[in-house]
Amino acid sequence: MDYNTMCPRYEVAIDIIGKKWTGLIIRVLLGGSRRFKDIKKQIPEMSDRMLTERMKELESVGIVSRHVYPETPVRIEYALTEKGESLRAIIESIQSWSEQWVEECELQK
Amino acid sequence: MDYNTMCPRYEVAIDIIGKKWTGLIIRVLLGGSRRFKDIKKQIPEMSDRMLTERMKELESVGIVSRHVYPETPVRIEYALTEKGESLRAIIESIQSWSEQWVEECELQK
Repeated sequence: MDYNTMCPRYEVAIDIIGKKWTGLIIRVLLGGSRRFKDIKKQIPEMSDRMLTERMKELESVGIVSRHVYPETPVRIEYALTEKGESLRAIIESIQSWSEQWVEECELQK
Repeated sequence: MDYNTMCPRYEVAIDIIGKKWTGLIIRVLLGGSRRFKDIKKQIPEMSDRMLTERMKELESVGIVSRHVYPETPVRIEYALTEKGESLRAIIESIQSWSEQWVEECELQK
């Protein structure tokens, strides 16, 4: 890997994954397809408006797909695509780094 | 890994790594210790003020250390600490995901 030159693809990836809330949303969806309210439950500080916006962005870059089940009431679920699913290695390495390195005093109250 | 509960350590890690410019700065420093201007050279769109701010933040969370060499003129270099160096697996997995999944049309002009 060439650390002496910045890579435009890496820049795009960091912009997507690093965006506020996105890293948390992807982590939730790695557990399987979820409804809007199930995602919210794990990230309660995030507003509905923000989650809606992020889900649209993630759909537009092909990381999340939206499935509408024509039931009564209608059921809508979000799932990772193959592109989204392949973020698993990144999310797991962040999780394991955090377990080793994030200290008690750094935890948000 | 438990995807059904959000992890506070993971949240802190995502906040650190995901912050604008930080993912790029860490990638540069994985190549070895660097001077301010060497970091800037790889991330020219970032302002001096922003880089100064980020380096202070990264020092304060123990990811970067600052070394002052008493030469004339004085030489100041930034390096990853052990905590920072252990972000390598994350950065490499983001790089390899981006090479597989980021498309030509997504690249920033």
